[in-house]
Amino acid sequence: MELSRILARHAGVEIVGLSSSRWAGRPVHEILGLPGPVGALRYEKTLDQSADLAFLATPADASARLAPQWLERGARVIDLSNAYRASDDAVYGLTEFAREQLSDARLVANPGCYPTATQLALLPLINQNMLASEPIHVDAKSGATGAGRKVDETLLFNELVDNHYPYRVGQHQHVPELERGLGRDVLFTPHLLPIQRGLLVTAYVKVNPGITADNLLECLKERYQNEPFVQVVEPGADLGVRRVLSTPLCRVGVAPVIKSSWARVFGSIDNLMKGAASQAVQNMNLMFGYSETDGLLP
Amino acid sequence: MELSRILARHAGVEIVGLSSSRWAGRPVHEILGLPGPVGALRYEKTLDQSADLAFLATPADASARLAPQWLERGARVIDLSNAYRASDDAVYGLTEFAREQLSDARLVANPGCYPTATQLALLPLINQNMLASEPIHVDAKSGATGAGRKVDETLLFNELVDNHYPYRVGQHQHVPELERGLGRDVLFTPHLLPIQRGLLVTAYVKVNPGITADNLLECLKERYQNEPFVQVVEPGADLGVRRVLSTPLCRVGVAPVIKSSWARVFGSIDNLMKGAASQAVQNMNLMFGYSETDGLLP
Amino acid sequence: MELSRILARHAGVEIVGLSSSRWAGRPVHEILGLPGPVGALRYEKTLDQSADLAFLATPADASARLAPQWLERGARVIDLSNAYRASDDAVYGLTEFAREQLSDARLVANPGCYPTATQLALLPLINQNMLASEPIHVDAKSGATGAGRKVDETLLFNELVDNHYPYRVGQHQHVPELERGLGRDVLFTPHLLPIQRGLLVTAYVKVNPGITADNLLECLKERYQNEPFVQVVEPGADLGVRRVLSTPLCRVGVAPVIKSSWARVFGSIDNLMKGAASQAVQNMNLMFGYSETDGLLP
Amino acid sequence: MELSRILARHAGVEIVGLSSSRWAGRPVHEILGLPGPVGALRYEKTLDQSADLAFLATPADASARLAPQWLERGARVIDLSNAYRASDDAVYGLTEFAREQLSDARLVANPGCYPTATQLALLPLINQNMLASEPIHVDAKSGATGAGRKVDETLLFNELVDNHYPYRVGQHQHVPELERGLGRDVLFTPHLLPIQRGLLVTAYVKVNPGITADNLLECLKERYQNEPFVQVVEPGADLGVRRVLSTPLCRVGVAPVIKSSWARVFGSIDNLMKGAASQAVQNMNLMFGYSETDGLLP
Repeated sequence: MELSRILARHAGVEIVGLSSSRWAGRPVHEILGLPGPVGALRYEKTLDQSADLAFLATPADASARLAPQWLERGARVIDLSNAYRASDDAVYGLTEFAREQLSDARLVANPGCYPTATQLALLPLINQNMLASEPIHVDAKSGATGAGRKVDETLLFNELVDNHYPYRVGQHQHVPELERGLGRDVLFTPHLLPIQRGLLVTAYVKVNPGITADNLLECLKERYQNEPFVQVVEPGADLGVRRVLSTPLCRVGVAPVIKSSWARVFGSIDNLMKGAASQAVQNMNLMFGYSETDGLLP
Repeated sequence: MELSRILARHAGVEIVGLSSSRWAGRPVHEILGLPGPVGALRYEKTLDQSADLAFLATPADASARLAPQWLERGARVIDLSNAYRASDDAVYGLTEFAREQLSDARLVANPGCYPTATQLALLPLINQNMLASEPIHVDAKSGATGAGRKVDETLLFNELVDNHYPYRVGQHQHVPELERGLGRDVLFTPHLLPIQRGLLVTAYVKVNPGITADNLLECLKERYQNEPFVQVVEPGADLGVRRVLSTPLCRVGVAPVIKSSWARVFGSIDNLMKGAASQAVQNMNLMFGYSETDGLLP
Repeated sequence: MELSRILARHAGVEIVGLSSSRWAGRPVHEILGLPGPVGALRYEKTLDQSADLAFLATPADASARLAPQWLERGARVIDLSNAYRASDDAVYGLTEFAREQLSDARLVANPGCYPTATQLALLPLINQNMLASEPIHVDAKSGATGAGRKVDETLLFNELVDNHYPYRVGQHQHVPELERGLGRDVLFTPHLLPIQRGLLVTAYVKVNPGITADNLLECLKERYQNEPFVQVVEPGADLGVRRVLSTPLCRVGVAPVIKSSWARVFGSIDNLMKGAASQAVQNMNLMFGYSETDGLLP
Repeated sequence: MELSRILARHAGVEIVGLSSSRWAGRPVHEILGLPGPVGALRYEKTLDQSADLAFLATPADASARLAPQWLERGARVIDLSNAYRASDDAVYGLTEFAREQLSDARLVANPGCYPTATQLALLPLINQNMLASEPIHVDAKSGATGAGRKVDETLLFNELVDNHYPYRVGQHQHVPELERGLGRDVLFTPHLLPIQRGLLVTAYVKVNPGITADNLLECLKERYQNEPFVQVVEPGADLGVRRVLSTPLCRVGVAPVIKSSWARVFGSIDNLMKGAASQAVQNMNLMFGYSETDGLLP
């Protein structure tokens, strides 16, 4: 839904069809409130239009079935599921670290929400050899949209509104993606927040000898100084997820104190935006030669 | 307020006076909704009654001033502030680990909310020599009552209802209490949850060679099998804070997977109950020879 | 669940069995967190114990089937469903207006949550002939527990947390109960609030010539001056539902201004307490000769 | 803040200055997160630029002081406060009912949030002579942003998150605006919702003889069939405020049942959008010859 809304106002995009098993037959304006030609379209069960690009916001098994079909019909594909994130046939679309590969990509695997925030917070430090080879502890918290739209007792208002808990510890599908991306063992502990959207990662990392909190912060600032969608937050400044809600931003920060060589690095995103839809549009922009920020500025 | 409510229905307690700078002069039933003789009392600016016991739910500087006055007048004191937690003159009242000292205690320092949940989750493992000497990472999340009743912009409904963030990282007053209690360096990272009450600690600990997740779980089960207020949660079972809301319970658990010798241990409490009021009443019960659960069972 | 908790600590009650189709076979302490003998009971599919009293917290069709069985076996019955509220065979258990009939009642129909708050706010005014015969407009708002525990998309956290809407307008099952109770046509408009519990009624009533807002307020004060569970709120004082959460109270008030002979009268309750469980216990207390407040004071 | 964001992306608008007593000196991007030239501006204490139009989002007394200054300097003015809503010198900017007057207006009084939703729901029915001359009961509910950004104890998270209550009954500043607009006595009862934004009005109106609920609905449909920002909701369809959050829409509906000649009509808006910022931009568009929807479509 977020992706459709962004695409509908993107000057370089013409939406030729939308598919939904749930809403098949219903007009788009009823579901998304969009006016104009996009709103007048109806959701279809399956799409057979010809298109330059297909976005797949489907479960991994559906993506694995649909992506080859679209590729064969000549479309390029951005898949938002877990299906191709470990595949050699796809470009892993963490935009800020994949620009050169995106322009020619046929199949892009959009990263998971947790791996997006975590890698944006840590990859510059790893690339500058600032972190020791110890395991990284990723304590992560996400709003309830991270769990999708399923009707499940645990997602009822009365169950969640005053609650907070860890879930799928040791079993989450993002662990391999995180370990591949960071090149480290990762203890990943996702928790559910009683909010709709927004995601915060608090990562505990061991630094190499002599590295200070200031070094980490400077490294992030230098890496991201020209990035339109990554902001480095000063120590003590507001790291709240509400700062990124409904925005394409990732905000990263560093705790001012290192103790026994362990540091804390933070990353926050809107899981539905930089963790899914807006990052997909960044990738599309680069695949098709648009400016990376097209359709994404407020 | 929670403490007054518990004490008002405790069969062994007679409340002879309540003090509040804010509500001085107003009847207790207006503020707490309590019927009967306690409700008919009025809050006083200062108390000069003679009493067997004084509870101090005051800022640390006020406690440091008031505790000696009460002790001199012959009362015993339970202080809920930070004033005496590091003091040799006070018993540190983490009830489950302080029972022998409480019966004769004149001055009890009630533990902080975060240290209560963290120590109940970890002390049995440390005491059984299961944890390495590495620093412990305490990633903690608390509802907004943890910040008290102050009128502050960051605690406005519109600022907090869709928010979540780390705060006072590297500066929180509970760090020395945690490090003293655990005998380890602690990286303590408190976060604010958009709920009223409830607190969850996710602790990352390095285990000694050969120690498994099952060993940790068994250790906790054995230690707490006869404890009325500590429950050990099976792996995969519900660790949500709503399970402890308005209860005197602490629930602890262990993640089923250890990776690179790092384990995750959880503890959850109601910050206003086991993190403050109900633990104070546990301590009072032991100081005065009552059954430890008096006044605390649902 | 609320009712079980109240009964478990009621000194005059012995719980001999609990039934639940959902939790059949599971121990009560797992579901309710209750210690002691009640916690050790297991939920049963059907109950065949002999008992002095059966509470039915079942859908109306199940109540209509079960109540006669219990009555035949010699038990008295308090039914919390809609099944018997219009029946001549049952006492309508709006406690404050039914005391004389309750002592001998075999079958008590506990009122609905909305009718409880509405009638407590308006019946004294009707009984004193202060209201004209015009229809009464009952604009009512309730937390999500009013809808029960069903797993329904509209009750998902993400659907409800930032929402508010009218529902079942013109179709709600409480309309006949309200019209019977008030003796007037009623335009009843229930709305869902994004909170767990709590219910507020704002009623628009036409007053008879010469009646002032002060007259209405005085009438309520006089009627309720000795009632333990009904409080009359001064104009301008706090009518918020949080004041009654988890209490057996109903709070009623009157807007200070009457315009064109129309007045506004307010009533607030916790829908799970005075709107269900605590009122059932008030009724039980009167049926069995206990003090009406037994088991219900904080 | 909402207004600044809309204007920043409006192709026909150049923002030459922003004023804020609170944020004077700070760059706009820090507060609003806006990129580009608007983000680079700094809030000023007072503005002395020349401009074609000044928006005043100030308290009524400040508006009464500032509007004449801007008018004298040749600017046109849209005032979002209560200062000019009853003034003969200003156009009352309920856009859908003021189009002819807006093109030449020098000073526009943007309507209040409650009056906007109420009048859009009722004016077509009044204009078609469908409503009797009885008083109208406006039971209204609004999110906490309706109270502005003030730091007040009643607006604390812990006070509001599980609360709901009527406020300023009989004293609200919108009563005269409502009575002037509707030409009827109005019993206006505003209530606070524990959500950030969104506003629902449930109006109780007496209809003229022979008028049915279908007549009311058809009247609204006919009046609004070509309106881009007013949607008529079918009976039983979703009237939840979340449907209008962050949109420029007003949604109106009619209860399917009339009883004793009393009907219920609903209106919902985002109080910050159609209740303030987006309606101001509609008005600006008409004042300056732009298409009314410019800058406002999703």
